[in-house]
Parts: sequence; structure tokens; C-alpha cells
Amino acid sequence: MNSFGNRFVFTSFGESHGRAVGGVLDGVPSGLHIDMAMIRQELDRRAGRELELGVSQRAKRETDEVEWLSGVMDGVTLGTPIAFIIRNQDARPEDYEWLKHTYRAGHADWTYQQKYGIRDWRGGGRASARETAGRVVAGCIAKQLLRLKGISIQAELVQVGNETDPMCFDEVIRMVQAEGDSIGGIVRCTITGVPVGTGEPIFNKLQAELAFAMMSINACKGFDYGTGFEGVGMKGSEANRISGGIAGGISDGTPICFRCVFKPTPSIAKMGVKGRHDACVAVRAVPVVEAMAALAINQLING
Amino acid sequence: MNSFGNRFVFTSFGESHGRAVGGVLDGVPSGLHIDMAMIRQELDRRAGRELELGVSQRAKRETDEVEWLSGVMDGVTLGTPIAFIIRNQDARPEDYEWLKHTYRAGHADWTYQQKYGIRDWRGGGRASARETAGRVVAGCIAKQLLRLKGISIQAELVQVGNETDPMCFDEVIRMVQAEGDSIGGIVRCTITGVPVGTGEPIFNKLQAELAFAMMSINACKGFDYGTGFEGVGMKGSEANRISGGIAGGISDGTPICFRCVFKPTPSIAKMGVKGRHDACVAVRAVPVVEAMAALAINQLING
Amino acid sequence: MNSFGNRFVFTSFGESHGRAVGGVLDGVPSGLHIDMAMIRQELDRRAGRELELGVSQRAKRETDEVEWLSGVMDGVTLGTPIAFIIRNQDARPEDYEWLKHTYRAGHADWTYQQKYGIRDWRGGGRASARETAGRVVAGCIAKQLLRLKGISIQAELVQVGNETDPMCFDEVIRMVQAEGDSIGGIVRCTITGVPVGTGEPIFNKLQAELAFAMMSINACKGFDYGTGFEGVGMKGSEANRISGGIAGGISDGTPICFRCVFKPTPSIAKMGVKGRHDACVAVRAVPVVEAMAALAINQLING
Amino acid sequence: MNSFGNRFVFTSFGESHGRAVGGVLDGVPSGLHIDMAMIRQELDRRAGRELELGVSQRAKRETDEVEWLSGVMDGVTLGTPIAFIIRNQDARPEDYEWLKHTYRAGHADWTYQQKYGIRDWRGGGRASARETAGRVVAGCIAKQLLRLKGISIQAELVQVGNETDPMCFDEVIRMVQAEGDSIGGIVRCTITGVPVGTGEPIFNKLQAELAFAMMSINACKGFDYGTGFEGVGMKGSEANRISGGIAGGISDGTPICFRCVFKPTPSIAKMGVKGRHDACVAVRAVPVVEAMAALAINQLING
Repeated sequence: MNSFGNRFVFTSFGESHGRAVGGVLDGVPSGLHIDMAMIRQELDRRAGRELELGVSQRAKRETDEVEWLSGVMDGVTLGTPIAFIIRNQDARPEDYEWLKHTYRAGHADWTYQQKYGIRDWRGGGRASARETAGRVVAGCIAKQLLRLKGISIQAELVQVGNETDPMCFDEVIRMVQAEGDSIGGIVRCTITGVPVGTGEPIFNKLQAELAFAMMSINACKGFDYGTGFEGVGMKGSEANRISGGIAGGISDGTPICFRCVFKPTPSIAKMGVKGRHDACVAVRAVPVVEAMAALAINQLING
Repeated sequence: MNSFGNRFVFTSFGESHGRAVGGVLDGVPSGLHIDMAMIRQELDRRAGRELELGVSQRAKRETDEVEWLSGVMDGVTLGTPIAFIIRNQDARPEDYEWLKHTYRAGHADWTYQQKYGIRDWRGGGRASARETAGRVVAGCIAKQLLRLKGISIQAELVQVGNETDPMCFDEVIRMVQAEGDSIGGIVRCTITGVPVGTGEPIFNKLQAELAFAMMSINACKGFDYGTGFEGVGMKGSEANRISGGIAGGISDGTPICFRCVFKPTPSIAKMGVKGRHDACVAVRAVPVVEAMAALAINQLING
Repeated sequence: MNSFGNRFVFTSFGESHGRAVGGVLDGVPSGLHIDMAMIRQELDRRAGRELELGVSQRAKRETDEVEWLSGVMDGVTLGTPIAFIIRNQDARPEDYEWLKHTYRAGHADWTYQQKYGIRDWRGGGRASARETAGRVVAGCIAKQLLRLKGISIQAELVQVGNETDPMCFDEVIRMVQAEGDSIGGIVRCTITGVPVGTGEPIFNKLQAELAFAMMSINACKGFDYGTGFEGVGMKGSEANRISGGIAGGISDGTPICFRCVFKPTPSIAKMGVKGRHDACVAVRAVPVVEAMAALAINQLING
Repeated sequence: MNSFGNRFVFTSFGESHGRAVGGVLDGVPSGLHIDMAMIRQELDRRAGRELELGVSQRAKRETDEVEWLSGVMDGVTLGTPIAFIIRNQDARPEDYEWLKHTYRAGHADWTYQQKYGIRDWRGGGRASARETAGRVVAGCIAKQLLRLKGISIQAELVQVGNETDPMCFDEVIRMVQAEGDSIGGIVRCTITGVPVGTGEPIFNKLQAELAFAMMSINACKGFDYGTGFEGVGMKGSEANRISGGIAGGISDGTPICFRCVFKPTPSIAKMGVKGRHDACVAVRAVPVVEAMAALAINQLING
């Protein structure tokens, strides 16, 4: 339920305002020197520290120190499960006290309460975007492994609202933020170097595994690749030229290119929701998309 | 690799022009009277027998007799695995002899050859849409089980090319067919009655499981739900009203509504491809979408 | 529930007196020429055709023709799932009519009825030893794959009742049979050539996977390896010399040697049970032990 | 690889002399008040604190404080994954410096090195019995859940060497210890209250799941139940009376009774092995057997 993959397995745990968030990554081969600087950088990217695009104050204050509990000796992987935690230093439950008896619109507060009969109401608990910090750490290790095999993953924001010119994203987000509102966005991801033959042809098609990985990200509302939704009006004679890197569920050696759409965050000042939130969650979703893609591709390659 | 699910498991087997296609459905409770008429009807729907919308000749000729091998006694399920086959009565390998040394554009011929070093070249072998007949049979049983729990699944074609008026679909397809070409389409699916709390909040989100199921269908190029791709331009203040039936990966009790886009079939007369193919595969994908949704929802409910 | 393994997966189906028993073997690489003669021979061995040791009449009459439904073209594997069936030619439900309302002692009749509320009472249905025919077919393919990697599996009967001299087994069984009774036995299995490092050190230890495989065989009541139960009285200074081929759950490159004990069959003439049954099921269990070991080892090596 | 179960999943991590050992338990329903005193008691039992039977000095000095990282709020489970760690307070790598270049007989040192090309040589690293502390914590939660369903699990030492009189175990162990040697033992476990129908009839038989669980415990060399190895000499007419609580892989409602044999520990003073080790590991295995049985039964009941 809280694990992703079955051969290269990431198990996620932790509540947003509990002791820590973290994870266990199982299936990493021994002998990898973990690039700690890259992890630092990716966590900063996720937290929006290097950005100025409508990032919540909490995200920027978080320092996200990774504590390695197992599986690593002197920075080198042992082949045993890698457990790590990021303590919730900025846990301020009192900010969320009002949530104890409130269900926010568009949030998972109500469904959690229904499913479990109890919930950690502090900042969304497990449903908080903070859970993705663990995914980013695991994804970094996954990316390093892929890099050794010549595979690279690169995601970028390609649309904010109806704007597709990256030069204008900053402006659109600022305007929306000024209105106390939020806006959706689209992230495009390109994976190069995936060996021909990756993916299983029937159910575990490469695109199915990627879609599964992406749709597990909070606020992601859609996935497409190749001709995608925009290709619905194409005729076969045109569409045949576009493979999206996959045929019959199996990679064909060309770059794999997919898109994810993120809805506007539901916690908006306009609706009287307190807290520290992003005007465009798609911005900070970029490293999470890369992380999940890296986990998914590792999973298939190790299969 | 050829199984879907882990608690309510459908295992698919069979090559398009081999002895048979079929499957094993494991996890069906005992005591269900299988509605054979419904299966007959759904297979006809998949084969396009009741339609006149650009359906291939082979599909219409197929009689698709289901032979039940196990798990059923006097039409009632035993709780043991249900194995069934549909013999390939219309196997005409000679029609496909030319494929032995040809890789069709947009098809999986080449990637299969690369992955396995061998392939059943007859009509696409395992990559053929014929594989979906087994999914439809299993999906019917899944739908019957859901019906007993008050859950219904209904898919429909909502777009063909750029046309969104169902009255005009027939005409668009005929025109494309006349050109020796093919066209894409969008199928929308609505699921009602899913109990509140279905879905797992982190990786196995309800939408992730549905996306995985849909993206495993041949020619499906994208999945979205709720605000979807069209909601990218929405602001949070608007988007909050649209849940798509899911919050935080968990069903909220309202109807679940998602869309799948299908690319135009790559086997087109224009490109000199022989064979018997559909001008708009989205037409026949409708019952397959329902079948896969039924398998996915059963999987989650039994979890 | 009816599948063994997750990377090299055997799914079993079929009732003893239904249409057929069979299976689907998924994960077999493409290009293997299946040794049909070996399968014939192993099925005969399972059916006790070459033996005279208290084998039931049904077993000897069964011809066990394997019908290949998919995954094989001209005797060569395609890399796709291999489905096969063995039709139940000797289905004589009338022999078992009396079982409809009777629960045999030591059999699964009652527990099946409790679990499913229904059962195929004809000859034990799914609980019949006939289900193992499918395991033997799959096991043969597994053994062939292992043979290509220099791994061989050899099981043999080493004890019948309290008798450990193989020369006397025949006599012991005949005597027991004459009494209308049955007797237990021990099968020992040796696996050579398993690469050093096979097995996962914590839960999926090599010995745990083998024990799981063996204990899934009907009538198997115990498993041990290395010093086993007999070593309980040893001191560390003696026991250290005996590895059983495994250390810390991981193969050490020396032969792996384990034992399985089989209880006497519960269907005995003495108790007024009609039907055609074996006086010592351990005899026919030998090829099933090899088959399950082959499936388990393939599973670990492909992992 | 380091997870047990797929519906009630325990993921284990940690090296013996690294930062911590611990685990993640996923699938625990919300609302359970964790009995912390029971966990304290069971950890003491595992560490041999209440015993005087040849228990290593380290085990007795360990305080084994459990730190709860997630899934628990005010001592009550949230339905989210429960992560916990036990810090290795007594980490004294210098005691094991000599192991860096030595492979101990009967230990996993050499196979780990072969499998991973690297190992945490400090006290056996991941292969150390210390890993079982996490199993005991998870097992306690599992036992509490079972207790609510009227299921109880009770293991006990029934044989030490060839001695079967519990009054004499202490003496036998002291004698062996005095010789600088070690001795094997047998643990018997009884599970009562398992609902009729638990277990899957083909591969995931109740006895197969239990055997898998037990054989994953370090030093466990064999598993049997019902008539077991001792019943090999029985005739069917006698054996039919003994069910062991399971028929056809499915519980029949009577107590389930199985045995595990543990080999003498390989680290013995006689062979010049330094370190702090047990003369009879079966003593401390008792709570581990219970823990693994509890995890296995929960897994089946939640399935």
C-alpha cells in the first residue's frame, strides 16, 4: 500500500507533522557511492529554495536534513535496504489546530477520515506534499543508478494555466498569487537512453508503469505520451511518425516523452484557508516527476 | 508480466493466430452464476458486430466461442481459478506471411523482435488487439461481481477526431475510411457506486490504478480524470468544485469519471498495409475500457 | 492464490474431474526448444507408469496428453506466456457420486466446503493430486532452463515408513497395500550448480523459498535441510561442517540438499474409502518435488 | 527482498552495528492502541534478559528502546505505515575489526561477500540475529491484532540437544557452554483460534506460509507440522487422526501446531571465535517464532 515497485522497491512512511518522513529503498546494488550533493540539490528544488515562483514559506524554511539509518557505510551502498529519514523540524501543529474539525475542499481530509476513522489532521498528515521529500531522495539514488547505464531523465514545466511561454510563467503565477488564488500547470518529461526492449507488452507496458507512477503524485490529474490527447484529431498517416519512444508497450530506443497535468492547489487564501501553500504546485512537482520516473524505469530495467 | 492485479488476478495468454487466446481469472468468489449472455454481448460489442462504424472484417466474422476449462460447475463459480479459451477459428496465417520479414510502422513488430529475438509474426501475434477478447470475458465476470455491490461502469465514445457530437461520429469514420486512413478518439468512462474509502492514499491511488489499467490497452495514449488536461487553465477557486470522484487517491462516493484517448490505428490502407483493420479503434475500445475498469475496481475492493 | 512466483510465474488451474487441468507459465525466455520427450517421461513418472509401487489404477490409465495453447511456435518458446492443458480423459464423476455428501477423514473435503460453501466433490476437485500434473509440465520447462545454466535437480525416495534401504521399499509398500492401509515416506532432493549468491538474505532465504515450494505439495508434512531435525543433538563444533549448500539464506556453491516428509495417504481401503489411491504417495511425489524445486530456483535466479 | 507479506507487510532494515535496526509495518488498521509494555517484554525475552540460559552478554546489555517514527499518534495507530527504529547503542565495531578479513565457519560472512562484493563486517552486519529485534516489534503489533480476533500464539522450547525434559534444559545448556560449545534445539508453536478456511488451497497453503516464515529465521533448519517427520512410520489408519489444524492447506478450526529446529550457533569459543554469543540460539528464537507466526497469520487473514 505504501510501497512502489516489487524489485526495486521504495517504501514511504511518515506524517507531515509527525516525527519524520522517510523511506526504505530496497534493491539498490552494492557499491554505489551516493551523490549526497545531488540529493541536497534535488531536495532544495522540491522545496522551491532556488525558485521564486509562488513557493510556500514552509517549503523554503525546511532544511530537509537526510539521516541515513541503514544500507550505507561510508557513503557507499551495501546492497541491503537503505532506510533514511528527514525529521520534521518545522512541525508546528498549532498552525493546523483548526483543521482538527474541518475538512478542506479539494483536500483528502474527508476521505482519510472516512477510510481510517482517524487521521493526523496536522497539515494533511500523510496526504501532505511533504511525503514527496522521501520520493525525491529515493529518486536521486535511482537516477544515479540510471546515469551509470546512460539513462537520463529531464522534466520541465511547459505550461502554466494557458501560458506556454516559459518566460511568462513567473508573471502568471505572481498574478494568480496576488489574487489569493492558484493555477494548474503541465510538466513534460523526457527520458533518453532506455534500452530497446524495456517494458512488458501486455499489462506492464512501459507507458502503463509511467502513468501509474505519475498518477500517484498529489494533484496530478492526467498523463499522456506520444500523440497524447492533442493527437486525437490526427489521422493514422500523420500519427505514425510519432512513437513517443514506445511501441507495443516496449521502448524502441528513441527518447520517451510524456506529460503530466497538475491541478491548481485547493488550499487558497481566497477560500479562507490558512497555511503556507503554493500558487502553482506544478513548479515543485518537476523534481517529483523525475524521481517517480527514475523509480519506475529502474523497476522495469531490474525486472 | 502477463497478469493484472494481485488479489483479483487476471492472467492473459494467447497469440492472435495461434491455437487460442484466453485467460485465468483468480480471486472470484464461489457461488456466482455467470451471466453467459452478457459475455456473448460484450464480445460482440468488442468485435464490433452490432456496429457499422469502420470495423474490420475479421472482427465481424469471429464467433468468439468461450470454452470454460475450470473454476465453473454448471455455470456457477467454484472459488477456484476460472480458465477459459477462445479458439482462433479465423486463423489465416497466410494473410500475414508478408509480415514475417516486415516491421509495420507504428506497430510492435520491431520492438517484439528486439525484445524476444523471435515473434509470432502472424497478425501481430501477442500484440494483436485480439488479446483483448480475454480481457472482455474476465471484465464481464468482474462487472457482474461489482453489480452485486451496486457498482456500475459505463463507457462511451465522446470524441472522434475533433468531432464531439456523437451524431456525427459515423460520418467522420466513414470519410476517414474512404480515404484509406484512420482517426483517433476519446472514450469517457463513469463509475458509480464505488464505496467511499476505496483506493490507497500514496502509490496505489485509485486514479493511479485506473491509469495503469487504461494505459495497458493497445493504442491508448493518455488518461485523465477530474479537471484533467482541460483544467490546466482553471484557477483553484474554480477547480475545487470538481473532484472526479476521488480525493487524495481515495474515492469520495461521487461518480468517478475519467477519459482515455486512443490514437488512430497505424495499419492503414494508405500505407500499403494489408489486413483487416479498424478506421477508429476507439470504437471497439469502449468495452475494453469497461473491462479493465472493472478488473481494477475489483482489485481495489478486494484489497 | 493459484500462482507460484512473481518473476517466473506458474499459474495452476483445473479440477480433477472437470474439463481439464493445466497452467500458464510466464517468464520463460524466448528461443527454448521444449523437450517434449522429457515432459512425457516426467508425466509418466508422476503417474507411476514406470513403477509398480502401489500406484493407483487411475494414475496408470491416464495418458496425460499435453495440449499447448500459447507461447510456443513449432516447439520453440516465444517469450510470451505458455498455456497448456491436460484434458481429464478419465473423468468418471459417477465413481465419486457418494462423495457429494461425505467428508473423507484426512482430506480437504470439509475445509473446502467451509471456505467456499461449494466444491467440486468429484474426486477431490481442485484438491486432488491430479493438480500436480500441471506442476510437472511447468517444472520440466524450468528444469530445462536450469540445465542450460548447469544446474541439475535430483530427488529420490530415501525412506518408506521406518525402512531406509531402497531395496526393501517395494516390499514394505506391498505389505501395507495388502492390509488396505498406507504408509509415509521421505524424499531427499539434491540441487547442484546453483550459482553462489542465490537467495535473499532476510525473508526470501533460499531455504525459505524451497520450504514454501515443498510445503505446497499435498501430503508434505515437513521440510528440513543441512543438519535438519536430525542435527538437533549436534554440537556447534560438529554442525559447522554441514552447510546444506546455504549460508545466511544464500547459496554457497556446494550442493543444496533437503528432505520432505510425506504422510500416508488418508484414502485407505481399511476405512471404507472407495476410489483409486496410492499406498505411498511419497513415491509419486518424487517428480513433483523436483518440479517445485525447479520452479523455486528459476524464480530466485531470474530475480 | 527485505519485506515479508504483501497485504500486511513488514519491511526490515538495519545493520547490526550501524545506526539502527528497524522496520516499517504496513497494513495495520487504524485505531489500535499499541501495547507498549508487551513490546518491552517481548524485546526483553528476545534479548534473553529474563533468562539465564546461555545468553550472550550483548543481548543482556541491549536496552532496545523503540523510537516510533510514523503511523502512531498518542499511542494509537493511524492506518498509515508504522516506521520504528531501535538504535544500536551497544555498537562496538572495534570488537569485530578482526572480522574485516575473516570469514567465520557456518556464518554468512563469505556468502554475503560473494553476493554483494561488500559487507558490513561489524558483527555480521545485516545477517546478525539483531535484525530479529525489528521482527519482534512488528510481531507484537500483529499479535495484538490477532488477540482482538481471538487468536493466540504460543511457542516454547521443547527440546535441547537430545533432551526433551524442560527441567533439564538449563543444565544441558550450561554444560555445553562450559565446553565452549553450542547445541541445537526445537521450538514448538501452537496457534489457536484461527478461523476455519484460512489459507489458500494450492500454493499459499497455510503450512507453506508458516514454513516460509519460520525458515526465514536465522539458524532454523527445519519445519514440520501435524504428523511431521516423526510420522513417517505411521500408517494411514493412525495418521488420519492427526490434522495439525490444517487440511488441504486450509485451517480446520482446531489448534495449529508446528515445530522448528534450530542448529547450534556456529560462533563458538572452542573454535577461537570472539564475540558474545549464545550457547543455544533456540532459547531466544522462541519469541521470534511467535512474531513470524503472527505476521504470517495476519497476512493470510487480511488476504
